[in-house]
Amino acid sequence: MNPPRGMRDFLPADKARRERVLAVIRERYRAHGFDEIETPVVEEYGRLHAGIGGDNEKLAYNVLKRGLDAEAIRAAADDPASLTDLGLRYDLTVPLARFYATNRGQLPTVFRSVQIAPVWRAERPQKGRYRQFVQCDIDIIGDASARAEAELIVATLDTLDALKLAGASVRINDRRVLDWMLDTFGFAVDERPGVLITIDKLDKIGPVGVAAELRDRGATTAAVDAFEAFLTRPMTLEFHPYGEAQIRKLLPQGAPDEIVAHLVGIGQAVVAARPGGDGIPLAFDPFLVRGMGYYTGTIFELAHPSVDYSLGGGGRYDGMIGRFLGQDVAAVGFSIGFERIVDLVSADETEGPAAVVLVHDRDVPVHELVAVKAALVASGSRVRLETRTKNLKALLERAAADGYTAFATVGAGTTAATLEVKPLA
Amino acid sequence: MNPPRGMRDFLPADKARRERVLAVIRERYRAHGFDEIETPVVEEYGRLHAGIGGDNEKLAYNVLKRGLDAEAIRAAADDPASLTDLGLRYDLTVPLARFYATNRGQLPTVFRSVQIAPVWRAERPQKGRYRQFVQCDIDIIGDASARAEAELIVATLDTLDALKLAGASVRINDRRVLDWMLDTFGFAVDERPGVLITIDKLDKIGPVGVAAELRDRGATTAAVDAFEAFLTRPMTLEFHPYGEAQIRKLLPQGAPDEIVAHLVGIGQAVVAARPGGDGIPLAFDPFLVRGMGYYTGTIFELAHPSVDYSLGGGGRYDGMIGRFLGQDVAAVGFSIGFERIVDLVSADETEGPAAVVLVHDRDVPVHELVAVKAALVASGSRVRLETRTKNLKALLERAAADGYTAFATVGAGTTAATLEVKPLA
Repeated sequence: MNPPRGMRDFLPADKARRERVLAVIRERYRAHGFDEIETPVVEEYGRLHAGIGGDNEKLAYNVLKRGLDAEAIRAAADDPASLTDLGLRYDLTVPLARFYATNRGQLPTVFRSVQIAPVWRAERPQKGRYRQFVQCDIDIIGDASARAEAELIVATLDTLDALKLAGASVRINDRRVLDWMLDTFGFAVDERPGVLITIDKLDKIGPVGVAAELRDRGATTAAVDAFEAFLTRPMTLEFHPYGEAQIRKLLPQGAPDEIVAHLVGIGQAVVAARPGGDGIPLAFDPFLVRGMGYYTGTIFELAHPSVDYSLGGGGRYDGMIGRFLGQDVAAVGFSIGFERIVDLVSADETEGPAAVVLVHDRDVPVHELVAVKAALVASGSRVRLETRTKNLKALLERAAADGYTAFATVGAGTTAATLEVKPLA
Repeated sequence: MNPPRGMRDFLPADKARRERVLAVIRERYRAHGFDEIETPVVEEYGRLHAGIGGDNEKLAYNVLKRGLDAEAIRAAADDPASLTDLGLRYDLTVPLARFYATNRGQLPTVFRSVQIAPVWRAERPQKGRYRQFVQCDIDIIGDASARAEAELIVATLDTLDALKLAGASVRINDRRVLDWMLDTFGFAVDERPGVLITIDKLDKIGPVGVAAELRDRGATTAAVDAFEAFLTRPMTLEFHPYGEAQIRKLLPQGAPDEIVAHLVGIGQAVVAARPGGDGIPLAFDPFLVRGMGYYTGTIFELAHPSVDYSLGGGGRYDGMIGRFLGQDVAAVGFSIGFERIVDLVSADETEGPAAVVLVHDRDVPVHELVAVKAALVASGSRVRLETRTKNLKALLERAAADGYTAFATVGAGTTAATLEVKPLA
């Protein structure tokens, strides 16, 4: 008897650790001026899938309409979508866009939101991938300037520091840079999405592998040649503060000033906001792609030296709000992978109040027991009552595993005043 | 454009208040030795509805199976349940029973759980009733003694105290008392469920109304006469500590010793655990019924002088775990109505760190802004950046409404060291 396929129960120790991590994330993002919001777990089916479709739609959990009769079900054979009216959200970005469109009049002009909530995707379950998992998103709506990206990145790095995951860094790029580069090399507009899918593998298969795959794909030969020559050009990068020279050095000649200036603005701000950091926590990567189709500008990805996968990422999606509001609004978000971060955070639970197990004999009257417990709780402890068993040692070990740090025995007539609390060790 | 029917968005002020209340509830229940757990929001359809059925089943949100083809849909016309494999939970008790059956080997012998989580019911939306709402349940599994009820009640009253909702009280009864009484008066076994539905209206329609409705129902005449005579008997209740005499006085002669002793045990323990309380926070009510069909023993309901509706309730459901585990285990739970409690808790948010709005001119470089903000955050403040607008007053009022308590202006060259922070009044 297990939870539904691909989903998890959280036992007390896991749940406590998750809540501790959440509390730190909440507190830090709040300090950085982000306001937490919450939306229902379901959205109307039509809104959830409007204009996104593709994989997300296939992976969606949809809710069966209530009260369908036999005739309606039969008719749905030719129109399966008529069986459903609501869908479980598969990310927090679409619900945020809907929320903003609904509540815009009550929100600040520049709205900084935090959402920490579960999402659902009916993917094939595999190690570390679940069908219900928590996302943790911060977004800034209504600010097209580099200030927005800088605030997101600084808040995120600070939050990782607070979780004792110092040393994280962010790779950054701009979708417009990618598009401009592909245009420069000579890739046709309609082949660019496929080219991006291959470029996304650059870390894994290297420049030669990318060029080979592009040729296999039948991409424009001259463009592939130009691209390969660029990727394999001789280049030395000197260490220097994040700036325009570093960015231009990594791009073909003539990159658009406006995009470069936006990237430089982000970089300077992140460096200025973290004067004590060792090294620069930001790197420009002109070949960072990121999968989601809705990005329109800056994109970024979060890395940590302890793992070889991304801990999060995000970007600008200036067109998304418009789908709901009928009017485009600048928007940029950064999502950290809560499930991955929880696994990295140290499990030790030394914080918190004294935790005392009260072991009592079977014949102690209930009212004495409960009164001793209440007095100890009132004095600031966390308290668990346990009936004495033959194997006292096992009982105390179990309590220690559950985070209890002290114990006392309670016999008939024991009061809070006569209780002797001893360390559990 | 609204959230789905009967569901709510939570804006920042509401969300912050909900999280503050949740943090208090979590902390108090944890102090009383309850361990928080979490289950997926969906359970397998068959398990969710096994043996409960009735209204809950009609109100359930069920998830459409993925990948149904036209033929499967057509075949479902005669078997609508074949369209679904998962259902959103409609309470936290059924998932807890499933969780316990799944994870029993990893849990203490007496397991005290807290669950704070949303549930879904497709009820007709009305004021104060929502289709997604948070329940907050504590349960004790594996303890058949009065210690369990006493721990639940003391922890709940303490939590309400911590939320500054002192003065709450609990009415208590036992399903077995009701059954024994109805037997004593002479109601037949098969008419008792209907009789209980009428008795549940005693507070509203009084003894005469109850007797009249029972006669209308066609209940056994002699039994109704005996019941009415009992309800309208002359009686004086002296004030005295909760005890056997008080309980027996409210019941017909000859109430079963074991049940009375259990109630006395609970009452003595609650009184002993709250020595400083003014008055006794527990009252025996032999006509408390509570709707759920799965209760098997003690039942209770939480009241507060500021409102005329119940703030929560619970009871023993010793048979429920057995449905999943194949073996009955003692279980008792207390659910507080989170949505109702949030509405009662004072809205003032004076706690928390200093919250500063930084109003900056448009020409201040982004990296200076973000650096000043980061320095202020690092010194312990919550900080929001705002671009100066013509109507500075409106901007500051908006920030004050959002909980900000101070402001400073940032021009070109301003640093954290030269910042002048002034109160926002």
